[in-house]
Amino acid sequence: MTVTPFISRSPDLTGQDAPCPEISLPENPVAIAQELAAEFAATAAERDRQGGTPQAERDRIRASGLLQLAIPTVYGGAGASWITVAQVVREIAKVDASLAHVFSYHPLGVIIPQLYGSEAQERYYYSETARQNWFWCNALNPLDRRLALTRDDSGYRLNGTKSFCSGAKDSDYLPTTAVVAGEEAFTVVVIPTSRAGITCHDDWDNIGQRQTDSGSVTFNSVTVYPEEILAPRQPGHPFQTFRACLAQLNLANIYVGIAQGALAAARDYAQTQTRPWLTSGVELATEDPYRLHRFGELWVSLSGAEALVDRAADQVQAAWEQGWSLTEQQRGDCAVAIATAKVAATQAGLAISNQMFDLMGARATSRQHGFDRYWRNLRTFTLHDPVDYKLREVGNWVLNQQYPTPGFYA
Amino acid sequence: MTVTPFISRSPDLTGQDAPCPEISLPENPVAIAQELAAEFAATAAERDRQGGTPQAERDRIRASGLLQLAIPTVYGGAGASWITVAQVVREIAKVDASLAHVFSYHPLGVIIPQLYGSEAQERYYYSETARQNWFWCNALNPLDRRLALTRDDSGYRLNGTKSFCSGAKDSDYLPTTAVVAGEEAFTVVVIPTSRAGITCHDDWDNIGQRQTDSGSVTFNSVTVYPEEILAPRQPGHPFQTFRACLAQLNLANIYVGIAQGALAAARDYAQTQTRPWLTSGVELATEDPYRLHRFGELWVSLSGAEALVDRAADQVQAAWEQGWSLTEQQRGDCAVAIATAKVAATQAGLAISNQMFDLMGARATSRQHGFDRYWRNLRTFTLHDPVDYKLREVGNWVLNQQYPTPGFYA
Amino acid sequence: MTVTPFISRSPDLTGQDAPCPEISLPENPVAIAQELAAEFAATAAERDRQGGTPQAERDRIRASGLLQLAIPTVYGGAGASWITVAQVVREIAKVDASLAHVFSYHPLGVIIPQLYGSEAQERYYYSETARQNWFWCNALNPLDRRLALTRDDSGYRLNGTKSFCSGAKDSDYLPTTAVVAGEEAFTVVVIPTSRAGITCHDDWDNIGQRQTDSGSVTFNSVTVYPEEILAPRQPGHPFQTFRACLAQLNLANIYVGIAQGALAAARDYAQTQTRPWLTSGVELATEDPYRLHRFGELWVSLSGAEALVDRAADQVQAAWEQGWSLTEQQRGDCAVAIATAKVAATQAGLAISNQMFDLMGARATSRQHGFDRYWRNLRTFTLHDPVDYKLREVGNWVLNQQYPTPGFYA
Amino acid sequence: MTVTPFISRSPDLTGQDAPCPEISLPENPVAIAQELAAEFAATAAERDRQGGTPQAERDRIRASGLLQLAIPTVYGGAGASWITVAQVVREIAKVDASLAHVFSYHPLGVIIPQLYGSEAQERYYYSETARQNWFWCNALNPLDRRLALTRDDSGYRLNGTKSFCSGAKDSDYLPTTAVVAGEEAFTVVVIPTSRAGITCHDDWDNIGQRQTDSGSVTFNSVTVYPEEILAPRQPGHPFQTFRACLAQLNLANIYVGIAQGALAAARDYAQTQTRPWLTSGVELATEDPYRLHRFGELWVSLSGAEALVDRAADQVQAAWEQGWSLTEQQRGDCAVAIATAKVAATQAGLAISNQMFDLMGARATSRQHGFDRYWRNLRTFTLHDPVDYKLREVGNWVLNQQYPTPGFYA
Repeated sequence: MTVTPFISRSPDLTGQDAPCPEISLPENPVAIAQELAAEFAATAAERDRQGGTPQAERDRIRASGLLQLAIPTVYGGAGASWITVAQVVREIAKVDASLAHVFSYHPLGVIIPQLYGSEAQERYYYSETARQNWFWCNALNPLDRRLALTRDDSGYRLNGTKSFCSGAKDSDYLPTTAVVAGEEAFTVVVIPTSRAGITCHDDWDNIGQRQTDSGSVTFNSVTVYPEEILAPRQPGHPFQTFRACLAQLNLANIYVGIAQGALAAARDYAQTQTRPWLTSGVELATEDPYRLHRFGELWVSLSGAEALVDRAADQVQAAWEQGWSLTEQQRGDCAVAIATAKVAATQAGLAISNQMFDLMGARATSRQHGFDRYWRNLRTFTLHDPVDYKLREVGNWVLNQQYPTPGFYA
Repeated sequence: MTVTPFISRSPDLTGQDAPCPEISLPENPVAIAQELAAEFAATAAERDRQGGTPQAERDRIRASGLLQLAIPTVYGGAGASWITVAQVVREIAKVDASLAHVFSYHPLGVIIPQLYGSEAQERYYYSETARQNWFWCNALNPLDRRLALTRDDSGYRLNGTKSFCSGAKDSDYLPTTAVVAGEEAFTVVVIPTSRAGITCHDDWDNIGQRQTDSGSVTFNSVTVYPEEILAPRQPGHPFQTFRACLAQLNLANIYVGIAQGALAAARDYAQTQTRPWLTSGVELATEDPYRLHRFGELWVSLSGAEALVDRAADQVQAAWEQGWSLTEQQRGDCAVAIATAKVAATQAGLAISNQMFDLMGARATSRQHGFDRYWRNLRTFTLHDPVDYKLREVGNWVLNQQYPTPGFYA
Repeated sequence: MTVTPFISRSPDLTGQDAPCPEISLPENPVAIAQELAAEFAATAAERDRQGGTPQAERDRIRASGLLQLAIPTVYGGAGASWITVAQVVREIAKVDASLAHVFSYHPLGVIIPQLYGSEAQERYYYSETARQNWFWCNALNPLDRRLALTRDDSGYRLNGTKSFCSGAKDSDYLPTTAVVAGEEAFTVVVIPTSRAGITCHDDWDNIGQRQTDSGSVTFNSVTVYPEEILAPRQPGHPFQTFRACLAQLNLANIYVGIAQGALAAARDYAQTQTRPWLTSGVELATEDPYRLHRFGELWVSLSGAEALVDRAADQVQAAWEQGWSLTEQQRGDCAVAIATAKVAATQAGLAISNQMFDLMGARATSRQHGFDRYWRNLRTFTLHDPVDYKLREVGNWVLNQQYPTPGFYA
Repeated sequence: MTVTPFISRSPDLTGQDAPCPEISLPENPVAIAQELAAEFAATAAERDRQGGTPQAERDRIRASGLLQLAIPTVYGGAGASWITVAQVVREIAKVDASLAHVFSYHPLGVIIPQLYGSEAQERYYYSETARQNWFWCNALNPLDRRLALTRDDSGYRLNGTKSFCSGAKDSDYLPTTAVVAGEEAFTVVVIPTSRAGITCHDDWDNIGQRQTDSGSVTFNSVTVYPEEILAPRQPGHPFQTFRACLAQLNLANIYVGIAQGALAAARDYAQTQTRPWLTSGVELATEDPYRLHRFGELWVSLSGAEALVDRAADQVQAAWEQGWSLTEQQRGDCAVAIATAKVAATQAGLAISNQMFDLMGARATSRQHGFDRYWRNLRTFTLHDPVDYKLREVGNWVLNQQYPTPGFYA
C-alpha cells in the first residue's frame, strides 16, 4: 500500500525515505507476549525498585511486532481484535503491570485519529505507525486543562503542561488534549514526541506503576501543523466516544492480569516456601484448611472478574466492528458491561494483592521478593477514576435504565 | 420408536397400553418457561405462605412439554442441552424457587439410569418417561442410610426411610439409594412412586423452599423388581459420577435465578413505591446516591455469578457430550468450574436477598409482598452442602492441582 | 409525694381515687428481665408465627415493675439509669425482639413530657405513670404528617392517622405528633389510648417484629385537653432533642440483643444437633475448622458492636445527667457514638442472623425452630432509618467535624 | 533502694560504679509520647524509605524516661499500668509503627525475669534497668530453634542464630530462647547485647516495619553466666505464660495505632488536597457522598477495634495485678478478649490502609507522601501469627468454652 505524504511541511517527521525497522507482523501474538513476559518477570521486582524508564523492555516490545496489533491490515498492520489485544496485555500484566500499562496505551493511542480525526488522518497515522513502528503514548489527561492551543501568524502553538502522561518518555508519538480559548471541548492534537519544545519530565515517582513514566510533559511554544489537529468526522457519535470504553476495558484487563500474577506468585511460594503453622495440625502448608479456603475464595473472586472482563471484551469487539454504525444502545450496553467488569476486577485484585500475604506467611514480606508491588501497582492504578462512581453508573443503569454518559471515563 | 417391554412382571407400571398423555415436544423451551413463570409469579407469595404441594403448577409443568427436555431424541424426547435446561430452570427460579427445584430434579432424575444402569435400563426409563410423561423426583439423599434393600424368597424389598425427598409427593417415578447389608456403596433403585408400601409424608415445613415437598418417604416392605435395581456399566467412571456435577450446577443455577428475581423485585419496588429519605437531598428514591451504589454493587456480584454459571454450563454440556469417553481431567475441570460458580452464586444471592430491603425501605417488609421469601428460599437451599467445603475444594485445586473427589456433592 | 391533680376536666383519666396496682420497684431489674426472658423464650417462636398482641407477656411486664425503671425517684419511680434500661431491654431482645421493642418504647415514651413539656407536665405524667403503672407506646412517627390538631369552640381535636405506632394496642398512654395548620414543626400531644375516637388497628402484618403491633392508629374527632398539649420549655435545646439519641441507642441495643440471642441459639444447636460434614475429617461438628472460624468471626463482630453500644450508653447516661445543661457538643459526641454503635450492631446482627444457618446446617431450617425469626426481626427493625445515612453522618463528623443535625433520627 | 550486686563475675555489665544516665520518671507519659510522636512524624516517611536503625529516635526514647514505664516503683521504675503503656505505644504507632514496635518490646522484655526467673533475677534486672536505663529488645522467636545453650568446663555457651530479633541492634539487653540438648522446652537467657560473640546483622530489609531491625542475631560461643539463665519459679503457671497475652495485646494496640494514623492522614489530605470527582456534582471533595460514607464505614470499624483493645487492656491490667494468684480462667478470659481485639484491629487496619487511597484520590500515590507505609507496616506486622488461627481460638471458646492453649502466641 502506498501512503500519500500527509504533512509535507513537517521537518521532524521521519519521512518515507528514512530507513524503517523491519518488523514482522506477529502470527501468534499471545505466544509472543508470553515469551516477553517470561523475560520481563526476571527483572520485574528489581525494576520496580528502580522506577524510571524500562528502556530495554520497551525496545523488546518494539522488536516483537506487537505494536502492529491494533492497526488494521488495510493500513499494513496486524488487524488483531480487541480480544487479542486484551490477552496480550494481560499476559504482560501478570508479571509487570508497568509494561502492560505503557504497552496498552499504544493500541489505545494509535486509534485516536480514526475516532477523532478525518479519514485522511486515520490513514496517515495508521499507515506510518505500521511502516515506522512508532510507539505511542498517552498524554490525554482530560482532568488537566493547563495545555493551550493557540494560533498566531506563524501557525499553531502548544503551551503548557499535561500531567499523568503515561509512557511519554521514549515514545515516538504523543496524542494530547489542548484547550482552545473560548471552547469547552478539548481539541485533540497528535504530534511526534521529539518535536522541539516538548519536554518529558522524570517526575513520576509514585508508589506503584513505577515504570510507566506517568509524569508531566511541558510544551514550550511547540509547533503544531494543521494536519496534526484532529478534525472529527462525527463529534459526539457513539463510535467517536468509544475510546473511553476501550480504555476502561484496558484498565479492567490489567487489573485482572495483576491479580492473576499475584495469585500465581502466592501459589508458587506457598507450595515451596511456606511452613505450616505450629497449631495447624497439618504437616504441609499446602494442607492447611484455612489456606485452602482462602485460595478458594480468591479464586472465586478472580474467576468472576475474569469472566466479566472476557464477556465485555467480546461485546467491545462486536461494537468496534460496527464502526460508525454503532448505536447509542450498543455503546451503552458495552459501557455497562465494562464498568461492571472493572469494579469486579478492582475488588478481586485488591483482595488478592492483600491476602496473598496471609497465604504465604511472614517471611514473604522480605523485600527481595517484591511481593508488595502487586498491591502497590494495583492500588495506584485502580485510582485512575473512582470505583464508587463506576458503581453509581452501573446502579443507574440497573435501577433507571440509563446508560453512562459518554465521556473520558465511560 | 417402539419400546420393548422392560419389566413384564411389574403390575403397577403404567403399561404401553395405557392411554398416554399427548405432549408436544417444546420448540422454544425458554419461552414456555417464561410463560409458566408469569403464571406462577401471580401466586408465588401466597403459595409460599401455604407451603404444601403445588399441584396445579406441577400439572401445568406436565402439560407444558418441559418434562421432555433432557430425554434424548433417540428415545422420543426433546434432546435439549444442559444449557437449555439451565435456562428453563432459571426462568422459573426467578419467580418461584420451589417450582424450579422440583422441576429441575426431573431432568436430574431421568438421566440416572443412563449413568448408573445398564443400556436396557437407560432405554426403558427414557422411552417410557417420554411416552408417558412421567414426572421424576429426588429421593437419593446419600447422607441418610436408613433405607435397606434386602432379598428374600419372594424377591427384593425396600424397608426404611429417606429424608429430604424433594418432589416425591405427586411424582410418578422415584429414584433412591438403598443400603445392602455388607456393602458400603449405595445401590440405586428406580421405582414408581405409586408402588405399594411407599408413603410420601407431609412433613416438610421449613423456612424456605416451602413447596418442594422435601420431606421424608417411608418404605414398608416395598417390592422391587430386579430390573429396577440399576446395574452400573462402569462403576466409578467419570461419566457415571457426573450427575453430581449436574446437580451442583443446578443448585448454582437456581441460586442465580433467585438472585435475579430478587433484584428485579427490588428494582420494580424502588422505582414505584420507595420514597426518598428525608435527609437525602433528592426528590426521587431512584436518584439516591447510596441506592444507586448498592444496586451497582449487587449487580456486579450477580453478573459475576451469572457469567460463571453460564461458563460452567458450557463446560458441562461439552463434558456431557463426551459420554463414556469423558476423562477424569475433563470431569475435574467441570467440577472446579461448577464449585466456583456455586460459591459465587451463593455469595451474590445472599447479598441481594438481604440488601434488597435496604433498596426498598421499611414499608417493603409488609408481609403481603412476601419479599422475605427470596432470602428464606436461598438460605434454605444454599445449605444443601456447606459452602466452606466447596471453597476448600476450589482452593485445593488452585494450590495443589487436585480435583474434587467425585462423590455425591462434587 | 403528693401529686397535684393536673387535668381536672379529664373524665377518662384514671384518677387518684381509682384503685392503683400494687407494683414494687424492681431491686434487680436485670435479674427480673432475665426471668421474664426465660418465660418469653418458651413461646417466642410460636408467637412469632401468630403475630398479634402479646397480651399475656405485656401483662407480665406490667406486673414485673419494669415500667417504673426510667421514672425518677422523685416522682415515685425506680430512677434507673439508661445503662440499666439498656441492659434490661437487651435481655428481653435476646429471646424476643418484639417484646423488647414494645417494652423499650415505654421508657422512651414516659420521658417525653420532661423533654417536650412544661415542668408541670413532666411532674404529672411521671407521677401518674408511677402511681398507675401506665404502659406507654410510640405513636410519634414523624414521617407521617396525616394527623391534624385543630381548635374549635369546644376545644382541641385530633383527626387523622398515624402509621408505625408500635405498641399502641393495649397501651395506656399514647404520645403522638400532630400537625397544626400553618406550622412546620409538630405539636406533641400525650393522651390516654382509651380516649374516645381512637382506634388502634390490627393492620401490622410484617415479616418481622411481628408482635409489636406497629400498625396504624386513627383519630376521629378525638378530644384533647389543653394540658395534654406539650408546652416545650426550651424548643431546640440539645436536651430537648436528646430523645432521638435515646431512641437510636435503643435500636442499636436491641439489634445487639437479637444478635446475641441468635449466636447463642446457633451455639446451642451446633453443640447438640449438628453433624459433621462428610468430608470434614472430624468426628464432631464442634471440631470443624470452618465452623470454629465462623464462630470466631461472628464473635469478633458482635463483641465490637457490643463494646460500642456499651460505650455509647455510658456517654448517653452522662449526657442525660446534664439535663438542661447539656451542650451541643456533648449531645453531638453522643450522637456520633450512637450512630457508630448502631451501624456496627446492624452489620454484626445481619451477619450473625444470616450465617447462623451455616453454623447449624440444613436441618436447622425446619420451621419448628423458628430460627429465621432473628433475621426477619432484625432485617425489619434495621430499616427503621437507613444505615447508609447513618454512615454518612458518622463520616461527616470524621471528615468535617460536623455533628449530626438534631432531628427525629439523630 | 540499694541493689545488691547480682553477677559479680560479669565483666561486661555496666556496673554500679559506672556513671548512670540521669533519667526522670515520666509524670505524664502519654503527653511525652505525643511530643515524641510529633518529632518522629516529620521524618517517618523518609526513614521508612531508608530502613535501618532509627538511632536518633531510639536515643530520644532513651532520654524521654519512657523506658522506665513498666518497671515497678519498688525497683525504681515508674510503675505505670499496662493501660498507660498501651496508650504510649499507640501514640507512637500513629506516626511510626517501627518505633512503636521497638519501643514496645522494651516493657515486654523487662518483665521477662519476673515471669520466667527467680525473685533475685526479677529484682536485679528491673533495678539495673531502672538505674542504667537499659533498652531491651526481643530475640525470643520460638519458631526458630537454631540457638543452642551448652555447658562445658568453662561454663555455659550460646551458639547459633535467632531470626526476627526486633530491636536487637543498638539494644542494651537481649532476652532470648535457647535449646538445651534433650529438652523440648526453651531455656530463657538474658544477656547484654554487647557480650562478646553476639552479632546483630543488618539483614532486615522487608516491605514494612522497616526500622525495626528485625533481622537475625548470631551467637558465636557466647559466654552465659549461670545467673543469666532464668530459673522459673512456677513453670506453666498462668502468670508465667501471661507474657504471650501482653505481647498479643501489644500487637493489637499497634495495629490500632497504625489504623488511627492512617485514617487521620487520609482525613487531613482529603480536607486539603483532594479535588471533587468531575461527575460528583459537589464543589468540595469533603462533600462527596461516597467519601463521607467510606469515612463513616472505616470509622465504625476502627472504633470497634479500639473499644475492644481498650477493654482487653483493662482486663489485662486487672489480671496482671493478680500476679501469681492469676487463675487459668482469668488468664483464659484475657486471652479470648485479646484475640478478639487483635482480629478486629487487623481487619479495621487493613481496610483503612487500603481504602485511605480511595478517600484521597490518585495524586496521593506520589511517593513523597509515603502513604503506602501504613499498609506495608500493617501488612507485615499482621503476619506475626496467622489471623485465621486467632479466629479459630476465639471460635473454640465461643462454641466449646475452651480457652486458647497458653503458648508463645496466646
